[in-house]
Amino acid sequence: MVIEIMEIHELIEGVRRNNRSIIGQAISLVESQAEKHRTLAGQLLQEILPHSGNSLRIGISGMPGAGKSTLIDTLGSYIIEQGHKLAVLAIDPSSGFSGGSILGDKTRMEKLSRSEHSFIRPSPAGGTLGGVARKTREAMLILEAAGYDFIIVETVGVGQSEYTVRSMVDFFMLLQIPGSGDELQGIKRGIMEITDLVLINKADGERKGLAEKTRQDFAMAVHYLQPASAGWSTKAATCSALTGEGIPAIYEMLNNFREQVTASGFFEERRRLQRKDWLHNLLESELLLRFYRNELIAGKLAQFEQAVCEGQMEVSEAAESLLRDFLKS
Amino acid sequence: MVIEIMEIHELIEGVRRNNRSIIGQAISLVESQAEKHRTLAGQLLQEILPHSGNSLRIGISGMPGAGKSTLIDTLGSYIIEQGHKLAVLAIDPSSGFSGGSILGDKTRMEKLSRSEHSFIRPSPAGGTLGGVARKTREAMLILEAAGYDFIIVETVGVGQSEYTVRSMVDFFMLLQIPGSGDELQGIKRGIMEITDLVLINKADGERKGLAEKTRQDFAMAVHYLQPASAGWSTKAATCSALTGEGIPAIYEMLNNFREQVTASGFFEERRRLQRKDWLHNLLESELLLRFYRNELIAGKLAQFEQAVCEGQMEVSEAAESLLRDFLKS
Repeated sequence: MVIEIMEIHELIEGVRRNNRSIIGQAISLVESQAEKHRTLAGQLLQEILPHSGNSLRIGISGMPGAGKSTLIDTLGSYIIEQGHKLAVLAIDPSSGFSGGSILGDKTRMEKLSRSEHSFIRPSPAGGTLGGVARKTREAMLILEAAGYDFIIVETVGVGQSEYTVRSMVDFFMLLQIPGSGDELQGIKRGIMEITDLVLINKADGERKGLAEKTRQDFAMAVHYLQPASAGWSTKAATCSALTGEGIPAIYEMLNNFREQVTASGFFEERRRLQRKDWLHNLLESELLLRFYRNELIAGKLAQFEQAVCEGQMEVSEAAESLLRDFLKS
Repeated sequence: MVIEIMEIHELIEGVRRNNRSIIGQAISLVESQAEKHRTLAGQLLQEILPHSGNSLRIGISGMPGAGKSTLIDTLGSYIIEQGHKLAVLAIDPSSGFSGGSILGDKTRMEKLSRSEHSFIRPSPAGGTLGGVARKTREAMLILEAAGYDFIIVETVGVGQSEYTVRSMVDFFMLLQIPGSGDELQGIKRGIMEITDLVLINKADGERKGLAEKTRQDFAMAVHYLQPASAGWSTKAATCSALTGEGIPAIYEMLNNFREQVTASGFFEERRRLQRKDWLHNLLESELLLRFYRNELIAGKLAQFEQAVCEGQMEVSEAAESLLRDFLKS
C-alpha cells in the first residue's frame, strides 16, 4: 500500500475538515508497519488526541449468516437520518489466513456507503488479530477527531475476537437469529457476560413468533448473569434489518445506555481502564515483536532451538543467553 | 526458604546417588527467584541434562473429589512394586491465591510416602501458574537424573492448568467419577482432545454398574474426537483406587502407550516440540518480567499510565517511549 506522505498539519486539518480521502490516508498511516511511518503516526495521534473521545463506540458480533452487514446498513442509515455521522470498522480474525478481507466490502452496506455522513473502512488484510485490533483502536481516535459520533466495530464471532472488540467499545451487541435460543447451551456463557444487548435479527414474516420466543429465552438467560456494564441491565430485543422494524427502538436504547452509564460515571471509568489495558497490551506485544525481529536474536534463536530440541542445551540456559544478548544489543 | 548452597558437584552427585534430601534442595534451587541462585541453577540443569529424559511423564487431572490423591497413592505404589522409582509433583493453580498448598500434603499419599522409591514434592506455595509450571519442568529433569522413571504431575482441573500440564507430559489422564458422563455436555471438549485416558475412579461396590455406564459414555464421546497422541486411540477405563481393582490394567496401558508411541516416533517428536515451546514460553515470560521489574521503567510506567488514563498522552506514544528507555537501559 502506497501512502502519500503529506505534511502533518495537512493531515490533521484534512481529518478535522472530515475529508474522507485524507481520513483514509491517516488510518493507513497508523496501520503502516514501516519504520519511517511510525514517528509521523505517533505525532498525528498525539495531535488529534484532544479532539478524540466524543463518540459512542459500538461493538457488533455474530456468526456468519446472522445478518451483520444488513443490520449495520439499516441501523447505520437510521442513525445518520437522526443527524449523526457514523463510521464502520471491521476486525476480521480470518483475514490473516485468507490473505484478504471477507468483511470489508463496501458493497455489503449499500445504503450506508452512499451517504456522505458515513465512513466505511474495510478490514486490513493480513496481520495478526492483535495487530489489527491495535490499529482499530487508533483508527477510532482519528474518526472521532473527524467528527464521527457513532463508531461501529464489527467482528465475526470467532475465537478471541469478541473479547478484543469488547475491550475497545462502550456498548457490545450480540446478533442472533430466531431459534438460536434453543442452542443456548452452546453459546459461550463468557460472551453473554460481555454483552449489553442480545439482538434477535430477522424477526420478520413467519419468523416473528420464533424470534419473540428466542428473545424471551435470552432475556431469561441474561437475567441470571452479571451485567456487562455497571448501571445497565443487559437487554434482549428483536428487529428486522430487512424491514426496519425495531430499528428506531435500538437507536433509542443506545441513547439511553449512554445517558445511564454516563450518569453513573461508568462510561468514563471504563474508557480509562480500556486506555490502561491498551497501554499494557501494546507494550507487551511490541516488546516481543522487537525481540523476535532483532537480527542478532533471529540467527541465534534458530541455533538454540535446534540445540534445545536435540536435548544438547538446557532450556533456561538458552533463554538466559538470548535475553542477555537482546538487552545488551 | 533457606537453601543451603553446596558445591555444584556435590549437588549433582547427590542427585545422581538419589539422595532425597539433596534432590529436594536441588529442586528448591531451581525454584528460587533469587538472582544469586540463578547461575548455580543454570549450571546444575546443564550438567544433569545428559542424564535426564528417561521417564514416562504422566499428567493427572480431575476435579476435587475425583479421588486423585488416592489414585496416585494406589497406582504409584503398584508401579513401585513392579520395580520402578516414582516421583509426584503437583501444580496447584490456587496456591497463588490461598498462600499455601492444598495439594502438596504428603499425608494424602500414605502408602507412597512410606516407600523409599518414591519422591513426593508439595506444590510450591505462591507464584503464578506460569512460574510454577516452569519450575515443574525443571524439577522433572532433576528427578529423571535421580533415576525416577515414572513421574506424575498432578493438577486440579481449573482454568488453564490442564493445558499447562499437557504441554509437559507424555501421557495425560483425566479422572472422573461414576455418573459424570451424564454431564458430558459440561466437560470441555478441549480437555477431551488433550486426554489419552479418561479414567472413571470409584468403580466399587454399588457404583460399579454406573461406573461402567459412564465409561461407555466417555468411550463413545472420545471415539468422535481427534486422538491426543498420534498412534494411540484415546481410551476410557474404570478402576477403584480404594480396592485396587483395575490398577494393574492401567499400569499395563501406560507401558503399551509408551511402546506404541515410541515405535511410531511420536514420543520423541512430542518431546522435541515441548522443549521448543518451553523455550519460547520462557523467553516471553522472562522478557516481560524483566521489563516490569526494571527500576527505570517501573517509575515511569506509573506516570505514563496516569497520563494515558487522563487522556493527556496517546497510548502508542507512551509505549514507544517506555520501550526506548528499556532497550537503552
